[in-house]
Amino acid sequence: MDYLKEMIRREGKVLPGNILKVGNFLNQQIDIDLLKEIGKEIARLYRDDKPTKILTIESSGIALAVAAGFYLNVPVVFAKKHSSSNVDGAVYTAPVHSYTHNKDYTILVSREYLKREDRVLLVDDFLAMGCALNGLVELVEKAHATLLGAAIAIEKGFQEGGDLLRKKGIRIESLALIDSMTDTSVTFRE
Amino acid sequence: MDYLKEMIRREGKVLPGNILKVGNFLNQQIDIDLLKEIGKEIARLYRDDKPTKILTIESSGIALAVAAGFYLNVPVVFAKKHSSSNVDGAVYTAPVHSYTHNKDYTILVSREYLKREDRVLLVDDFLAMGCALNGLVELVEKAHATLLGAAIAIEKGFQEGGDLLRKKGIRIESLALIDSMTDTSVTFRE
Repeated sequence: MDYLKEMIRREGKVLPGNILKVGNFLNQQIDIDLLKEIGKEIARLYRDDKPTKILTIESSGIALAVAAGFYLNVPVVFAKKHSSSNVDGAVYTAPVHSYTHNKDYTILVSREYLKREDRVLLVDDFLAMGCALNGLVELVEKAHATLLGAAIAIEKGFQEGGDLLRKKGIRIESLALIDSMTDTSVTFRE
Repeated sequence: MDYLKEMIRREGKVLPGNILKVGNFLNQQIDIDLLKEIGKEIARLYRDDKPTKILTIESSGIALAVAAGFYLNVPVVFAKKHSSSNVDGAVYTAPVHSYTHNKDYTILVSREYLKREDRVLLVDDFLAMGCALNGLVELVEKAHATLLGAAIAIEKGFQEGGDLLRKKGIRIESLALIDSMTDTSVTFRE
């Protein structure tokens, strides 16, 4: 998706440890024109698969999932990262390791919001080692729902998460797939 | 806003401790039709004030802020609830107490995303004691930006947060203002 790649080239910052900072347009601050284009593109990629639900993970996935939901007209569900007093009743859980923050946590979603008959599209901002996405896949499997695939804004193609998920037969659509990064440049896979 | 009130009456659950659970349509699961109507209503209320930025707080405010951003065509910024390795550089901070979770935390936003020249609209899902909203007001004041007011989905009018903020001269628009709740009914202020 050219608009996203252009924003990454122009506004993204590469930090030590292969971190790509996109806080200016896709994380803490969200560019609405870009977000609308991302929502339209995700809808174009998955509309024919007739999703009934979009599943993401708090916090940075929510804006992207809502944008996709706007154009696909399906409800958005976000997995929470820890137990909250606002989630009552039974939940599905999955363990997730964050390399960015170097810690383990549990993601959870109420069983009410993921049903066997659901056709689920996963949406997230980043795919690198694939830990968060693997956790979301596990939640869908536990609910015995149908997994349609995932739509990711930015995949770090030089890390193994995406390829491991594809080898399992899961459809992964990344709007910007990065082959390599240096302090001064980002190279995309065409 | 009638659609929201109808959803609260039909799908909301009152839990002990004056907690109104809306996880089915406005929190962990988000109804997209409702979200679009909320976005349109917030845009109608604040369009003439020419906001340049919408500020909310993770996680449950993000979907509402994005919806408002879609119709106002302005960037969305969300304050984070704790220090994160993805926020570099200088930040504005404010202390917030959560009565729901009975704990204190710090909210923060990068100085890059709140500028003196910004005209800021605050958006959040709930207003009760006003702690989160007071924290957001403090961030805007620290940035010396212009505060246009706040748009809240659900205000608990029987708690003091909204009135205290209004007494300070801050414009608060609540799409559903609850006067009282029992286990079986919710009464709105007309």
